[in-house]
Amino acid sequence: MGLLDYFRSTQSKGSANVAKERLQILVAHDRAARGRPSYLPKLQQEILDVIRKYVDVDMNAVSVNYEQEEAHEILELNIVLPEAGHSRL
Amino acid sequence: MGLLDYFRSTQSKGSANVAKERLQILVAHDRAARGRPSYLPKLQQEILDVIRKYVDVDMNAVSVNYEQEEAHEILELNIVLPEAGHSRL
Repeated sequence: MGLLDYFRSTQSKGSANVAKERLQILVAHDRAARGRPSYLPKLQQEILDVIRKYVDVDMNAVSVNYEQEEAHEILELNIVLPEAGHSRL
Repeated sequence: MGLLDYFRSTQSKGSANVAKERLQILVAHDRAARGRPSYLPKLQQEILDVIRKYVDVDMNAVSVNYEQEEAHEILELNIVLPEAGHSRL
């Protein structure tokens, strides 16, 4: 199963009864050189800044997950967006 | 299975023999209001610009997948990074 299929299968569950705007961002980094510092925590803030150009993001509505394991790192951002009327576009 | 587990399982395959730097970014948007224009294609360029602050990204090494289906959109960026020596950090 491809990643897009996986995403689609998890997202379609329950979306019929809860019509919320949601944005989920995943950044996965496979590192060849393990000793170097990670830039994902910094990326996290910058990606949020970019998203805020398009929609209002309440920082209380952002949940962040960061995992590091040997040469793999994963950053996950889950954002519940305000309703459509508050879009900046 | 959680998304992080899924990510981990796909990423660990084959990583022992090919030690490449890789960055995978997924943005999934659940839209409550279907009629509005999508900003994911614009986000794509801006996220790439942010990443380029940290690492050299050869545009030929970026593959982009964008899917839209009813109220779900998924943007996927797969980037093969240059070797560690070329990092901007």
